[in-house]
Order: sequence, then structure tokens, then C-alpha cells
Amino acid sequence: MAGNSFGTLYKLTSFGESHGKAVGGVIEGVLPGTVIDEEYVQSELDRRRPGQSAITTPRDEKDRVEFLSGIFEGKATGTPIGFVIWNKDQRSKDYGNIKEVYRPSHADYTYQSKYGIRDYRGGGRSSARETIARVVAGSIAKLMLKQWGITINAYTSKVGNLKLEKSYKELDLNQTEENIVRCPDQEMAAKMIEYIDQVRRDKDSVGGVISCVVGQVPVGLGEPVFSKLHAMLGSAMLSINAVKGFEYGLGFDATHLMGSQHNDEFYMDGDRVRTRTNRSGGIQGGISNGEDIYFNVAFKPIATVLKEQTTVNRSGEEIKSTTKGRHDPCVLPRAVPIVEAMTAMVLIDAILMNKMYQ
Amino acid sequence: MAGNSFGTLYKLTSFGESHGKAVGGVIEGVLPGTVIDEEYVQSELDRRRPGQSAITTPRDEKDRVEFLSGIFEGKATGTPIGFVIWNKDQRSKDYGNIKEVYRPSHADYTYQSKYGIRDYRGGGRSSARETIARVVAGSIAKLMLKQWGITINAYTSKVGNLKLEKSYKELDLNQTEENIVRCPDQEMAAKMIEYIDQVRRDKDSVGGVISCVVGQVPVGLGEPVFSKLHAMLGSAMLSINAVKGFEYGLGFDATHLMGSQHNDEFYMDGDRVRTRTNRSGGIQGGISNGEDIYFNVAFKPIATVLKEQTTVNRSGEEIKSTTKGRHDPCVLPRAVPIVEAMTAMVLIDAILMNKMYQ
Amino acid sequence: MAGNSFGTLYKLTSFGESHGKAVGGVIEGVLPGTVIDEEYVQSELDRRRPGQSAITTPRDEKDRVEFLSGIFEGKATGTPIGFVIWNKDQRSKDYGNIKEVYRPSHADYTYQSKYGIRDYRGGGRSSARETIARVVAGSIAKLMLKQWGITINAYTSKVGNLKLEKSYKELDLNQTEENIVRCPDQEMAAKMIEYIDQVRRDKDSVGGVISCVVGQVPVGLGEPVFSKLHAMLGSAMLSINAVKGFEYGLGFDATHLMGSQHNDEFYMDGDRVRTRTNRSGGIQGGISNGEDIYFNVAFKPIATVLKEQTTVNRSGEEIKSTTKGRHDPCVLPRAVPIVEAMTAMVLIDAILMNKMYQ
Amino acid sequence: MAGNSFGTLYKLTSFGESHGKAVGGVIEGVLPGTVIDEEYVQSELDRRRPGQSAITTPRDEKDRVEFLSGIFEGKATGTPIGFVIWNKDQRSKDYGNIKEVYRPSHADYTYQSKYGIRDYRGGGRSSARETIARVVAGSIAKLMLKQWGITINAYTSKVGNLKLEKSYKELDLNQTEENIVRCPDQEMAAKMIEYIDQVRRDKDSVGGVISCVVGQVPVGLGEPVFSKLHAMLGSAMLSINAVKGFEYGLGFDATHLMGSQHNDEFYMDGDRVRTRTNRSGGIQGGISNGEDIYFNVAFKPIATVLKEQTTVNRSGEEIKSTTKGRHDPCVLPRAVPIVEAMTAMVLIDAILMNKMYQ
Repeated sequence: MAGNSFGTLYKLTSFGESHGKAVGGVIEGVLPGTVIDEEYVQSELDRRRPGQSAITTPRDEKDRVEFLSGIFEGKATGTPIGFVIWNKDQRSKDYGNIKEVYRPSHADYTYQSKYGIRDYRGGGRSSARETIARVVAGSIAKLMLKQWGITINAYTSKVGNLKLEKSYKELDLNQTEENIVRCPDQEMAAKMIEYIDQVRRDKDSVGGVISCVVGQVPVGLGEPVFSKLHAMLGSAMLSINAVKGFEYGLGFDATHLMGSQHNDEFYMDGDRVRTRTNRSGGIQGGISNGEDIYFNVAFKPIATVLKEQTTVNRSGEEIKSTTKGRHDPCVLPRAVPIVEAMTAMVLIDAILMNKMYQ
Repeated sequence: MAGNSFGTLYKLTSFGESHGKAVGGVIEGVLPGTVIDEEYVQSELDRRRPGQSAITTPRDEKDRVEFLSGIFEGKATGTPIGFVIWNKDQRSKDYGNIKEVYRPSHADYTYQSKYGIRDYRGGGRSSARETIARVVAGSIAKLMLKQWGITINAYTSKVGNLKLEKSYKELDLNQTEENIVRCPDQEMAAKMIEYIDQVRRDKDSVGGVISCVVGQVPVGLGEPVFSKLHAMLGSAMLSINAVKGFEYGLGFDATHLMGSQHNDEFYMDGDRVRTRTNRSGGIQGGISNGEDIYFNVAFKPIATVLKEQTTVNRSGEEIKSTTKGRHDPCVLPRAVPIVEAMTAMVLIDAILMNKMYQ
Repeated sequence: MAGNSFGTLYKLTSFGESHGKAVGGVIEGVLPGTVIDEEYVQSELDRRRPGQSAITTPRDEKDRVEFLSGIFEGKATGTPIGFVIWNKDQRSKDYGNIKEVYRPSHADYTYQSKYGIRDYRGGGRSSARETIARVVAGSIAKLMLKQWGITINAYTSKVGNLKLEKSYKELDLNQTEENIVRCPDQEMAAKMIEYIDQVRRDKDSVGGVISCVVGQVPVGLGEPVFSKLHAMLGSAMLSINAVKGFEYGLGFDATHLMGSQHNDEFYMDGDRVRTRTNRSGGIQGGISNGEDIYFNVAFKPIATVLKEQTTVNRSGEEIKSTTKGRHDPCVLPRAVPIVEAMTAMVLIDAILMNKMYQ
Repeated sequence: MAGNSFGTLYKLTSFGESHGKAVGGVIEGVLPGTVIDEEYVQSELDRRRPGQSAITTPRDEKDRVEFLSGIFEGKATGTPIGFVIWNKDQRSKDYGNIKEVYRPSHADYTYQSKYGIRDYRGGGRSSARETIARVVAGSIAKLMLKQWGITINAYTSKVGNLKLEKSYKELDLNQTEENIVRCPDQEMAAKMIEYIDQVRRDKDSVGGVISCVVGQVPVGLGEPVFSKLHAMLGSAMLSINAVKGFEYGLGFDATHLMGSQHNDEFYMDGDRVRTRTNRSGGIQGGISNGEDIYFNVAFKPIATVLKEQTTVNRSGEEIKSTTKGRHDPCVLPRAVPIVEAMTAMVLIDAILMNKMYQ
């Protein structure tokens, strides 16, 4: 328990620094017999990879996954799946200056303080490059979820002040991949892209919100009282780099309401118990009730800006510093598959856990 | 791992239903030699207990904690502390009607579906009565935190649309206990109380936000990449009944900003590295940086309203139902000590974990 | 993880000292709907309790279990089962002298050194009184195992030099409870009883071996590579007070043999794959193969002897000391139900874990 | 929790099959700043590797470890250390026949039954090739233990009926590496080697015992009641391929004795509390008392023999089968570093855990 594992029965243990030899991990809990579609896994990595569009960092990392174990003749065997993604396009010298400097709102200072030593190149372990391992484990989780028919769709719903006011029911979530910002509303997407491009030219960065919807959820997932399904989702999302908040169902908007306004009345849909409204967000008492699960994830603007800032160095001197290098003006587009990956891992873990009752 | 334990080195395992014999738990990780001030623990339980004021449920539960082990001559011995709180003022017959009825937005339906059986009396395990165990474990965590000088202050910052706009720095957090709604601004508190009382008379309920501030935090707490300090705090908060959202630092408000607006520049405060602003909320890269940690927790209006609602019963019939019994129109005042308790548990667990590096 | 929990999906978290208010625990993973036969649980506790026969300690502890949660109308609900057994017949003053003295081969010195404080009365947490909680959790595990038809039979197979040479297949394991030493061979039992009584009169203690057989085991239990079924059994047995060794199948006797002598050849028993011999002890590669699981557990003579011994006290002085009080000259008879209890917990945990593949 | 992780704070998560691309793992809990002496790690792997001597399998696996993360400029950074060892000398076709055949006393049948699919080549995950990962993690644990001055020495003490009767105190443990069977008594070693060579010529295999001694142990390691230090050691040893038993201190020999014969009397050695004898094996009540820890590990003869045996195939037919390929007639010599590795991991985990009390 030093923080590098996620999940209980479906479990990822990850490793890797931004500029080390490789990032990778070990996945446990892949059901034996699962067909491991490596092209699909790779396609998910491609959604996350840098250099994929004009509004992401121009670092061109190919990020090819190489599986090392746990797969035989294309199928999972039930033994742990080890994998690596080799780090290739690291320009470590770009980062030489941060050896001594604590960049504002990065993890340089806290890592140095906690461990007394750090691999400063590209942020080391604190780099979002670590999320590659999550996407690999999440995409295999997604492959497993298909057998239960469960769908997961994340999308960019807010960039800076550009907020998509439509609910997910008013959107065609199949449109998400139709643009580079991954917003299913093409009109809003165009505005977001233009805005992000402006931010990039300003050598700045901007935050936003990713929304996620899980459909066709079985009733009964989640382990109260501490491992409530939404607590696991929240923990998963908050572990992603740059995330500052999580809300599900009506979330913070529920705080304005009265119970008579917020409660979801039950009705019978054939022989199935359903709720007419779904303000609860598909989870009641920490357990899925079969309605769609939906939630929002708040991302801060990433800390890397190419403007001069004041900071201190390891010698305790206050200095002026300007970050060089390549960066994402807005991480939202690349974080969409990461949100989906973490969601998939939480769901499959909950499904496996729930099997004990069956 | 069936969801009833919280924490790794400082760990609570809880048990108990609303109308069973008792609620209680086992606490591991209390440092040997810690003086267990039972009066203090009891005073924290009194902050949580029903019937404490005109705006909480009139159920009069005394909630006396009885320690069973792990304490010798007033001090913790390092062995697990078992404890119980006997359930006394249960009027189970009030709840007879919910044996067959799934109350809207309660956990009746999901528990029944998951387990195939449920103790329906008063919500059983899904009742917030379970949080008693958290307050006991949290108050002992608070006693331990004192030796590091760490302070935790939660308060009601929003009820319905009544929102305290002041930041915690503009408030005197010692004023929180001066009123029954636990808002440190007395003027706002008066409005909130009046509003809650109106909601109560309307047989309805209302949601809100609890804010929490942790001061004097050591640098270095938190275990990236999955057990980031804020992910642990978020998981803790989201496991509390009725919680729908969590944000730390600027949270969702950070999503509007640009990096140059959001970054916290470092400076030297004597020989200590500090940040001029604290938009990050005291945590960078998942590790505490020594600044105040602050966060918000969104509570929905509780599901128990005394108005007629449409729902279904276990036979799959749609029916009209009106809940009787006693309830809280607004859980915020009683949830303040629960938020503090969970926060204290997360902090002490992080401190014990961090000792491995020392 | 401070050592007071056992199991993953079927999990006991225990608490309690010998002379505190109570011992007890929390059980997770009891399948909802399981009928909790409290009389059966009590009968298992009676097999463990002191004062049950002429060769056990005359301390007369009634050890009545009181369930506090997780059971509704006689059935488990899937929520955690809290329970306590009140300590009643403690004569703490008998132990006043051990406040300052480290008794040879007890845990007084190591607890004092590790925690810096200890509840010295009756050994505190290190007392075998703690195993009461194991018997409660184990007896509920046994109730669950019945639905799979799995049988567990432990018995005393060696006391001092009196060793039962017959294999379990030559014994009628239904005869175990027919005598107070719990050896299914009545002739050997009589010798053992006479020997233990002699040891008691000599104010000494004696060790021995408990053997255990698990029958009707499903194929497929156990989680290689670290949680092999026998590794879990070994860990369980070694956690019992006074246990010094564990072997399964031929165990240490396998070390003399050659592979051609030790291997179990497969054959078809109808359409079922079986082995002609079972030197492996029902587990191959850490996974049950459907044959009987059998193993031996070595118990040292307990450290409490009523003879004068040399030791040291907390002031660092060498002294002569004679223990007073009541004790067991041989723990084997009372440890038989404890071995069965731990075995049952391991089995049910493995069954629940294995469900993820189904 | 699917059985591929070992330890709590010092934790190895391993992956890899005998004939897959690679074996490897992720190590957490390496203290930041630890100098990672890769040559030392490699030298430990060389002690384990096949083909190292005339009495081990002639498979010539170079087993070069490649570190992928967690090390910067030669030192551990506190982030997880990922590593791989590429599989090179696999002659998969040698194993083609076992695709359909369940080899006696191997894990073919149980893996197939549990998972419904298996990588049959060379035993797949059940192969002892998996222990490479343990040796890597264990050798880094040994590097860490040096800073506490703790020593670990394992050696072959029994092969077939050739048993070293001397206690470890009568041996010069520095002599262990002086011969290929790793027995510190050169005379006995010569006999063992001759015997193993005879067994090899007979196309058979033979079992034995490895003894292990841990010296300079700090007082206070181990977490009662379930994670007693010897329970963790036992679990570790029993998880090694072919192990059938574990005993510590006098072990099974303690079962003959009376308490007055077995107890270890305390005395003062200067200002240090010590025991005159050490029948307890350095652990009392599950916690180290500072004396040497010593224990024995029983290994069965490995199942691969080159003689004809009767077995069944996947179609449920009884057949005659003769294993071909290369194998170890006796695993003891190569298992010595594995026993040491697992011991080192248990010790360092216990040390890190114990830091919470300091």
C-alpha cells in the first residue's frame, strides 16, 4: 500500500516516470477467456497520446503497448497481465533547469520534500504520462464490460467559461470523437477549439469539466458503507492529474433543492423497478439502481504555462522562471479516455466484487 | 474487503444497523500511549446526536460510547479498540410500513436488490446512524492529531440558496459552535436556522454544503499516484450519507481559470517554502505542501420528507406513500462533526503511512 | 493493516484482551440469507471454553456470544456481523505480580518493547482468549460451508511423545468428540488423558500436534502465486497461539522421497479426474484438486508452568518467579475447534474469491 | 487481491509465465535514497538461475534484470520500481505434449479447472520461473536490511535422507556458497551432491529441507494477532513452489517437550534483555525478541521426473506419459536464494510497519 495500486479484484499496479525507460503495470482480475483485442487497446492509447491534434502538445509519443504475460493465443488466462510502454520522445535536456527550481503548482516541491530525492525530468512520477497505464488497464476493463452490455461515454462539457448547458440526454454521444476537443456538440466544440488555440498562443493553459455517463448498469454494484460506488468513482477521478472536484447526479446543484424536488419517484417499467427522474445519478445508498450513472470531473488549468513566474529554488532563493518545452494548453481532450478508463476499472471491480453474493 | 473498513494503518471497521442492538466498530492504529479522553469522544458524539436542537430530529438518542478493549489505565495500548453504542430510542413500529415499500431516493430498493434481504427498520445499515462509529474513530484521530498541532474545522457554508460568500480566512472558525446550524457567521446562521425551520414546518428537507479547513499540516502527506491525499479525502467524504460532491482548493471554480491565474507562486517565509496564494488547497501532486487544506462537501436534501410521494412496493405495485416518523429537515448541522471525523482519519492515516519514509 | 483482520472477502476483525471488558469482532462476507444458528455457534464456543473438562484450566468462563448487528429475523443480511463475548471470570489480582515481571516464553517482554505499554493482566491481547472471536467467525463459516457440503475435522494426533500413527483414513473422525482430549482413537485418547493429567500434577505443560482433514472440497480454490491455498492455511494456523509449525500432505516426510515415490498419478473416476494417491494433500500448484486436504499443526507446550523459573523484571533485575493461577497443562483439546474455525474461514474466503471466475 | 502481490508496505506485484515474453514485477516501499546495486541483484539472480552447476537443470537462462523505473542516478526515488527479465531460452516445443496431458503432481489440472484456459508451455504461471521476480525484490530488500545490520543466511540442511544434524550455531554459514548444493558443511555437501547426481542419472527427483537464520534482528517486529512475524514468514515460505511445510524455533520437535523444558529463561546481557536458550526461535507472541530467528522449510521432490507415469488427458482418457525436457533433480540449491529473498521481504515489511509506532 504505497499508492500505486488501484482496485481490489480488478487491480492495476502501475509504475513509471515521464523520462524513465518505460511506464507500465500489472493488471489482475482479467477474467480468463477474455479476448484481448490489442488494436482496441492501442486505439484507446491513441486517444490519449500527445501530438494527436493541433490543440495538444506537439510531443510525438507513439505509446505502443507491449504485453508481456497473462495472454495466451489472444486470450487472457487469468494470470496477471504485465505490460510496458517504452518512453521514446523524451527531450530530457528541456527539463534540465527544473532540477533546481520548484515550478509553481507542480509537484516538484512536494515530491522533493516527501522523498528527499526526485527524478525531476518531465515531472518524473508526477507526470500525467503515468496515466498511460490506466488507459491500458481501463481499455481491457472496457472489453470485459461489453459482455454485460455496459456503456461508458465521457466528453468535454466545459472549457474555461464555455459550458455545454445541455444534459447528456440531449446530446448524441456518438458525436464525441468527431472533433478534437471531444465535445459531442459540434457547435460548442468549434468554440472550445478556437478558445484553446487562443490560450495556446497566449502561452497559457485553461481548465474545464469532463462529464461521463455509464449506461446499462446492473442493479446492485457498490459496497457500502465505505466503498459506495460513487465513493470509488470519486476516488478514481480525484486520483487523475489536475482533477479538483467530483460530483455525481445533480451534485452541487442538489444542494439548492428541497427533498420533495430532489427525490426520484419509483415506477414500474414492465416488471422492472425504475425511477421517473434520475437526480440521484443512478446510485442510491452507494449501490447502483440500474439507471444511468452520470458525473462531472473538474480539471484545473495545468500548471505548465510558458510565461514568466516567480518561484523558489532548492537553495531557498526566490527567482524568476520561465518554463520551456512543449505542453498541452488544455488537458481535457486527452483526459476523456482517462476518465473512461478509470470508470471502467471501478465498474468491473464492482461487478467482480458483487459476484460473491451470487 | 466488503466495504466496512476505512483506512490502512489507521483503520475503522464498523458495524451496526439503525434499529439493531448496537452500532460500533474496531479501531486499529491508535498509537500506544495516546490518552483516550472519553469525555472528549462523548462531546463529539453529542455534536452528532439527534435531538440536540430545535432544527434536528426530535429522536432523543443518548449515544453513549462504551469502550471494550485496547485501553488500559486511560491510555491506548496499541491493540485494537473495540467499542459499542447501544441503540435505545428505536421506535421500530414507526417503520413497519417500509417493510414492503421502497421509499423514493432511499436505499431500500438497492439493498433489497443487492442482498435479497434487508433489515428495513429505519433504513438498517444504510441509515446515517452508522456514522456514530465514524465520529468515535474520528475523535480519537483528532486526539492524536493534537500532538502534531494539526487543526480541523468544518462548518455549514450553504443551506439551500443561503450561501456564505466569505472565504474561511474571513471567518472566525471559533464561532462555529455558537449556533445550532454550525455556521461561523452569526448573521448567516440566523437566516439558515430560520430557513430550516420553515422547511421543517413544510414537512420537507433541504441540502447544503459543508466546508472544512485543515491547518498546520505537515509537508509530505499523501501517497501518489492512486492514494493522493485529496483522493483519500474525497473518498472519505463521498462515503458519508447524502454526499453528492467534493471539491478542494478552488474546485469547480478552477475550471474557469487560466494557468497563469490559478498557479500559486512560491516564496520564502524565513527558511520555509510557502505559496503566496493557495488556490491549490494545500495539496500539490497529491501531497500536502504545508498550506491550509480546504474543501467543500455537497449534501443533497435527505430523502425523508413527510409529504405524499408515488413509489412502488416489493410486489411491484405503484402506490402512494407518506413517510411518518421523525427526521432531520437538514442534516448539515449534525454532519459537521462527521466531516471533521473523516478528515481526521484520513490525516492520521497519511501521517502513519508517511512514517515509513522517516 | 495492524494485524487484527483475517481474510479478504470473508473477513474477521477482532478485538479484546484477556481481562478487558470483552472480546469480540466484526465479520464481513457472510452471505445474505445464511441462517445464523446461534446454538451451533455457542456449541463451538463450548468446545473451546475453559473449565470444560478435568484436563483443561478450571477457569469457568461461560463465553456467551452476543450478536449486535448483521442478522435480521435469524438470517444474515450481508451487512457486517458485530459480536461481543463479555469477560466475566477474570481474577485480575492473580496476575498482579506479572505487571513487573517478564514471564519466560510469554509475550510480556515483546509487547512491552514494541508498544511501550501493555495490559499485563492475563497476557492482555496476547492471551489465547482472543481466539474466541475466531471460533465465532469460524463457526459461521462452517454454517456457510455446509451448503457446499464441505466437511472439516480436526483432532489431537500427538501429545508429547504419544503419537497416533494411523492416518486419518484409518480413523473414525466421528469419534473425536467422544473423549475430552479430542483424539478419535479411544485407546490413544485414554493414554493421552492420563499423560496430561500427570503433567498437570507435575505443574508443567506439554505440546502436541493437531491434524485436520477437509473433505468434499471443490476443485479450483486458492489464488496463486502468493495466496496459494496452503499458504493461506499455513498463515492461519501459524497465527494461532503456541503454534510452531505447519505441514500439509506428506509435509516434512515428503523431503525424504523421490519424485517417482511422491507423485500422485491421475485416473478417471467416472467422468471425474482424481488421483490414486494423495500425497499432495489435495492441493497442487496452490489450488485445490478435489481430493481431501489434510495438514498437521505443531503446538509447543504453553509457557505457563507453575514451577519456579529465572527471569528478569522491567527494572532489569534477574529474579526468581513462580507463576500462580489457573492454566491448561495442554492446549490441544481446546485448540481443536480453533484449528477448525481458522480452516473454515480460509475455505469460505477462497470460495468467495473463486466466484469472480464464475 | 488475486494473489500476485506480496507484502503490505514493502510490496512485490509479480507477473510472468515460464514461456511468455518476460517475467517481472513492480516493487513498492523501497526507501528513497537506497542505493540500488544492480550487480548485487544480478548476483542473487545468478544464484537462482538454471544451468549454474552440474546438479541443476542444463537450461541456460541468463536472467538479466532490466529496471524500468523508480531509480534515478543509481538511487531509489520512492516511486515504484518496475522490472523485467526477458525469457530467452524457452524451447516451447519440448512442452507441446503437455498441452493435452495433465502431468502428475503438477498444476496442469488445477489451473485448467480453475481458469478454464492455461498457458501450458513449461507450466506457465505455475512454473518456478516466477520466483525470479521474488529474487529481484528480495535482493533489494536485502540491500535495505543492511542499514539495520540484519543478516539472512539460508542453506540446504537436508536432501533425501541426508540430514545435517548440526545446529546453525555449529556451522560456519560463510561456507554455504563454497559448494554447489549450498550446504555449509563441506563433508555433508559432498554426500548430497553425489546423491543428487545419482538421482539425476536415475531420471528422478528428490526433496529436502532448507534452513534459514536471521541475525541481528531488532526487537518489536511483527503485528499480532493475525500478522505475527512467524505467520508472515510461514506464508512467504509456503508460497514458494514445492514447499510442503514450515516450522520455526524447535518447530515440530517442540511438540515432544514439556513447558519447563521448552521455556527460554530471560537474563540481562548488560542492559539488554536476552534469553539464555532460544527454543522460541527469536519470536514470542508473534513479535521478534532480538534473538536469532531460525526456521526450516520442507521441499517435496519436484514433480518432473523423466520416467513413465500413468495419468489422464483433457479428453478424460487414461494414458501413459513420459516427460521430456530439462529439469532439476533437486531444487534445493537454487531455492536457497529464494528462501532468503522471501525472508528479506517479510523482514523489511515488518520494519516499515513497525515505524508507525516510532
